[in-house]
Amino acid sequence: MLQILSEHPCFNGIQAYYRHDSRTTGLPMQFSVFHPPVEEKELVPVLFYLAGLTCTEETFMIKAGAQRIAAQLGIMLVTCDTSPRDTGIPGADQDWDFGHGAGFYLDATEAPWSKHFRMESYVTDELHELIFSEFNADAERTGIFGHSMGGHGALVLALRHPDKYKSVSAFAPVTAPSHCPWGQNAFSRYLGHDGNQWLEHDASALMKHRQTPFPHGILIDQGLGDTFLHEQLLPEQFEQACSAAGQPLTLRRHEGYDHGYYFISTFVEDHLAFHHRVLNAA
Amino acid sequence: MLQILSEHPCFNGIQAYYRHDSRTTGLPMQFSVFHPPVEEKELVPVLFYLAGLTCTEETFMIKAGAQRIAAQLGIMLVTCDTSPRDTGIPGADQDWDFGHGAGFYLDATEAPWSKHFRMESYVTDELHELIFSEFNADAERTGIFGHSMGGHGALVLALRHPDKYKSVSAFAPVTAPSHCPWGQNAFSRYLGHDGNQWLEHDASALMKHRQTPFPHGILIDQGLGDTFLHEQLLPEQFEQACSAAGQPLTLRRHEGYDHGYYFISTFVEDHLAFHHRVLNAA
Repeated sequence: MLQILSEHPCFNGIQAYYRHDSRTTGLPMQFSVFHPPVEEKELVPVLFYLAGLTCTEETFMIKAGAQRIAAQLGIMLVTCDTSPRDTGIPGADQDWDFGHGAGFYLDATEAPWSKHFRMESYVTDELHELIFSEFNADAERTGIFGHSMGGHGALVLALRHPDKYKSVSAFAPVTAPSHCPWGQNAFSRYLGHDGNQWLEHDASALMKHRQTPFPHGILIDQGLGDTFLHEQLLPEQFEQACSAAGQPLTLRRHEGYDHGYYFISTFVEDHLAFHHRVLNAA
Repeated sequence: MLQILSEHPCFNGIQAYYRHDSRTTGLPMQFSVFHPPVEEKELVPVLFYLAGLTCTEETFMIKAGAQRIAAQLGIMLVTCDTSPRDTGIPGADQDWDFGHGAGFYLDATEAPWSKHFRMESYVTDELHELIFSEFNADAERTGIFGHSMGGHGALVLALRHPDKYKSVSAFAPVTAPSHCPWGQNAFSRYLGHDGNQWLEHDASALMKHRQTPFPHGILIDQGLGDTFLHEQLLPEQFEQACSAAGQPLTLRRHEGYDHGYYFISTFVEDHLAFHHRVLNAA
């Protein structure tokens, strides 16, 4: 049962918040949808946005200023929380970069995390199906994007589920989690110490084995004033992997811009325009 | 001494946060400025934004999406906190609609509030002077706007200081605080029980005695789905006062829109364009 938490008119559309009991995580989950203004029953393209560490289903909808553009282009926006909450697992609240608020968009295989931390299945199966069954979203025109940990999520889920996502972009993504402290900490605890498992959730590693799954390209924006750039994000690793795989990539480096939503809000219009172009290129 | 708390590139401008020791409130105050991209030393028009109950100097800058438009139009945006903080006054943290976060943009005359709660002097004198002495803001092209309690503040400060503000607009303002519970509670505790003092801080009462101080008009947007509309905001009282005074007013009523920042973000572009037009009409 889908519970409507709130609905707010916004740019002639509706910004809505929902809650449901998730079979995947075994806990209640919250997500938000921006419904663009449309004629009744018209199917619209939909973009899933995956947020970064510590964020919730509200962050992007409050801070990015994306609804104005989504309303203009007729795109539905969907964001979910960054992990299950209130899992009761000891230590899940202890770190800002692991546990609650830090699900890393994968299905944990290690106890005690594996019971609830199943964000890949949640996003790509349960939430996915819910959006298309409940709302006027067009499954044939579905893209994914995200920021930081959610940029990692967007790239990895797009590469692992190219049947579900026709377009992908990211803001300041964690592109090589096997090689950065955030990723190494999360992967070792969620996935254990089998390096082969890690590579299945590492965008740069995955890209090496793909044959241009996104012929219209991938768009990444990265601020050069981002304090996480050199230790955590490593966009050059993804750039090299794309180059080796023949995957067209537009990686834009922006002088001075940092890791936050003032950066995202500045470039979000370009991302929505990019997805709109790709999703409507039949 | 002006302390820079943070600076974030945003739409080719800079979103900055500052802290200083205020002589007016006797306490440290924080405010934020969006500096639009400009040629060096060019003076730009400036808009002061006054936020509503519980908000801070961050709220508008995070939620309204105004920087995009301010960058395009070359307008500086300034927002301050909604009251002094950490005053140590017993009860100042007790209510969400009085005390900390609820300064009502007036100088309290009643103890114990009168020592620190001096937001009118802070905004119109100390912060005002600081902005023009520290930054490239044009005192001849200065406007003011705000939301809810801050809409009250914008209207009242514009009416009381027409020499300082050439343009004024508001989102869902408290227009007749002498006649609504928020205003009556705040005025009785900040100003005491002299009704004449109240009328000096009531936009609808002030307007009755003014002779069209804003010949280019006043812009107000009000959502009809706003749960505070009929008890707290009372725009019809301000509408009648403007009509009686011959003050041009554009009061737009929007079906369904509520009291929050999804509403503000939808119409903020119109407000910046309005101020830009008025401030540049020589």
